[in-house]
Amino acid sequence: MKNYDVIIIGGGPSGIITGVTGIKQNPTKSFLMIKEEEKGLVPCGIPYVFHDLDEVSKNKMGPKPFIDAGGEVLVDRVESVDTNKKFVKTKNNKEFHYGRLVFATGSIPFVPKFIEGYDLENVEYIKKSYNYIENLKQKTDKAQNIVIVGGGFIGVEVAEQLAKHSDKNVYLVEMEKYCLYRAFSEDMAKRADEVIRNIDIKLYTEDSVDSIIGEKGKVKSVKLASGKEIDTDLVILSIGYRPNTDLAKKAGLDINSNGAIRCDNYMRTSVDDIFAVGDCSQTIGFITGRTDSIMLASTATAEARILGYNLCNISILRNFVGTLSVFSTEIGGKAFASAGAIEQSAREANVNFVIGTFQDKDRHPGSLDDSQDLFVKLIVSPKGGNIIGGEICGGKSVGELINVIGLAIQKEVTVYELISYQIGTHPLLTTAPTKYVLIKAAEMAISKMKTN
Amino acid sequence: MKNYDVIIIGGGPSGIITGVTGIKQNPTKSFLMIKEEEKGLVPCGIPYVFHDLDEVSKNKMGPKPFIDAGGEVLVDRVESVDTNKKFVKTKNNKEFHYGRLVFATGSIPFVPKFIEGYDLENVEYIKKSYNYIENLKQKTDKAQNIVIVGGGFIGVEVAEQLAKHSDKNVYLVEMEKYCLYRAFSEDMAKRADEVIRNIDIKLYTEDSVDSIIGEKGKVKSVKLASGKEIDTDLVILSIGYRPNTDLAKKAGLDINSNGAIRCDNYMRTSVDDIFAVGDCSQTIGFITGRTDSIMLASTATAEARILGYNLCNISILRNFVGTLSVFSTEIGGKAFASAGAIEQSAREANVNFVIGTFQDKDRHPGSLDDSQDLFVKLIVSPKGGNIIGGEICGGKSVGELINVIGLAIQKEVTVYELISYQIGTHPLLTTAPTKYVLIKAAEMAISKMKTN
Repeated sequence: MKNYDVIIIGGGPSGIITGVTGIKQNPTKSFLMIKEEEKGLVPCGIPYVFHDLDEVSKNKMGPKPFIDAGGEVLVDRVESVDTNKKFVKTKNNKEFHYGRLVFATGSIPFVPKFIEGYDLENVEYIKKSYNYIENLKQKTDKAQNIVIVGGGFIGVEVAEQLAKHSDKNVYLVEMEKYCLYRAFSEDMAKRADEVIRNIDIKLYTEDSVDSIIGEKGKVKSVKLASGKEIDTDLVILSIGYRPNTDLAKKAGLDINSNGAIRCDNYMRTSVDDIFAVGDCSQTIGFITGRTDSIMLASTATAEARILGYNLCNISILRNFVGTLSVFSTEIGGKAFASAGAIEQSAREANVNFVIGTFQDKDRHPGSLDDSQDLFVKLIVSPKGGNIIGGEICGGKSVGELINVIGLAIQKEVTVYELISYQIGTHPLLTTAPTKYVLIKAAEMAISKMKTN
Repeated sequence: MKNYDVIIIGGGPSGIITGVTGIKQNPTKSFLMIKEEEKGLVPCGIPYVFHDLDEVSKNKMGPKPFIDAGGEVLVDRVESVDTNKKFVKTKNNKEFHYGRLVFATGSIPFVPKFIEGYDLENVEYIKKSYNYIENLKQKTDKAQNIVIVGGGFIGVEVAEQLAKHSDKNVYLVEMEKYCLYRAFSEDMAKRADEVIRNIDIKLYTEDSVDSIIGEKGKVKSVKLASGKEIDTDLVILSIGYRPNTDLAKKAGLDINSNGAIRCDNYMRTSVDDIFAVGDCSQTIGFITGRTDSIMLASTATAEARILGYNLCNISILRNFVGTLSVFSTEIGGKAFASAGAIEQSAREANVNFVIGTFQDKDRHPGSLDDSQDLFVKLIVSPKGGNIIGGEICGGKSVGELINVIGLAIQKEVTVYELISYQIGTHPLLTTAPTKYVLIKAAEMAISKMKTN
């Protein structure tokens, strides 16, 4: 039986980054990655294969950096883990002994078996599989009436991309009052919904799928709870993902109440020398310390770096404990992003907050040609003034501006500090120094805190 | 004699923000701003009136927010200050008693009287005066051969804008080896110079003006130290600014070795109840604590907020002492930015450092249409791992990405922390989560620190 110092199960972002970082720290150790498919995908790039990239091959992501660093890759499937004798057994009947084992098994789409017709032909999911998505891309190319169920990020992005094909009718169904309502407060989610409607997506909020109706085994229409029936030739269900943990359960690892593999701040599971990282591992909300369920490639890679550096011993301490969710997207040319707490999540957790907002142009003077409205909201703890959340809507600068807020939350920056901080501004790149949006929002929060 | 609780001398960004913030904190107090010109300008927008904005009126900035907040404005010039009896006297012979007095007198272009011909007709400066710039704009419209002296930010930006007019020949003369060499390390400055040459600016580095030659009192040509002579109908000297402190000197305020008004962390000068803010006040380098000379609207407004909140008593402490310079610009569609220390300034101050760099596309996958190269460099203290500087070159996202670095410096983030931090990424907005440029650069710095 061949022996590896480290075996990583899974070849997504967290598997790759754990491997690359781990090898760099331990250049004399042997690393094996076992992944199920030859080719891999940039997970967050998947929606864009349906229009902007146009080809699935343009969204490829493989373990090349891991191989270049000296890792070995096997395309196979791990069927069982013996945690006592420390070896894994694959579908092709190979066995490998491990020194340390990493579960980077990712997540799988939630399949609502309780909905009639969930298994009809052309009822599809956004699986993070190259071959599956290539097949789905061909189906979308042919389809004229497409119903997307679930207005989270993936659902909205896929709908937006499909709606760019002028020959298609795109319908989007969301149970909540607004799309993206897990990531944005009401006012921001409203703005996003407006954009969605403006780009000719037929949006049904506060509605859900009653049943999927077929003809000769193939989808024909979708019946909504409201009674509305939509004729369709393709349904894409995008109603969330679940940690992929069947193997971990079989191996006897502790699983938390969200179905994720339980682990500590350094991704160590309940079993010695076994780690879990990325979508399959647990996340902890940074404010409450309670179990959360955030599945983002950015979160996964942050965990993977922590694990990679600390695979053999804890050498780089983790300063910020808990997972900060940082979401961003672009819909119809408008960028939306959020970091940390939003109003709903703070209220649910009974966390007091004050809000500071500001809107301005993202160039100065605003008379510059490409200037767009930029709106920012900060969610602030009312006594100490710590920033615990932020939301932004605007042009492309939103993508990095949310990382200013993200860093501020992780470094426990208060609004009092923020207002004396020096920021960089330039007419062609940012808001004006006199009205830098984050600082103006911080000032508004400070003015509210006086009365709290 | 009319009495005001607070009198602010100057109506630029620091004067306005001090006033607006001060009034909000002290709504019952009376505020007067005395400024010399009716109309004001967005200072960093000045280069763009020469092409992109095309009209000076599109770059207006007035004290409206201050007036809206309840402040009074007088267009006049303060000629003297009696610091014992606490009153100011204006050119129009008005006298006002003050409770607190703020110098926000800004800076003025450096005039090299040692250069022959410095005072010829059509030898101009970039004065922060609305009427002056309107006049200069008319002159540039007529001119065909324009020589700009000084390759700092203003010089480069003005040259870039003028070069966009296809009927003009634009020459740029810089003493140093590269343009922008005060804000960027050699490799970055080189990149900027390449862009400058590519947009058809005739660039002469390591050269300087020997003399300016006139005919009938009007400029005719410029003779460089290298011997080269350039025929020209307009020369713009952009070789730095000096704190505008004549009045402060007359009033007896302490002036530092850079000619700026000496003040403490809360902008309090050597005389009771007198403050100085913005370009006319001293700046302190954040690493060394030594006198520095940074004149940026963003720095000025940060000081102005600190002063505005603390005008009457210190109520919001300043956590980050010293001035962090954050520069950004865009030349020929390429953005350049830096924050904190650069290689030269660290070396000059005998500060040890290691460098971490990384280059990738600013979208992921990089096959997306609008993706551009993004290059980042971090300057890191080799023992504790604190980030003390950063430089970036890329697309427009650079404008906010430099603020992530700026905040990291001000909050004393180490590269060890940075690698475990969660960042937000999105295909259409940022680099990939697996290769987020700041984190990859931090990893490279960490790998170097092992051997230090």
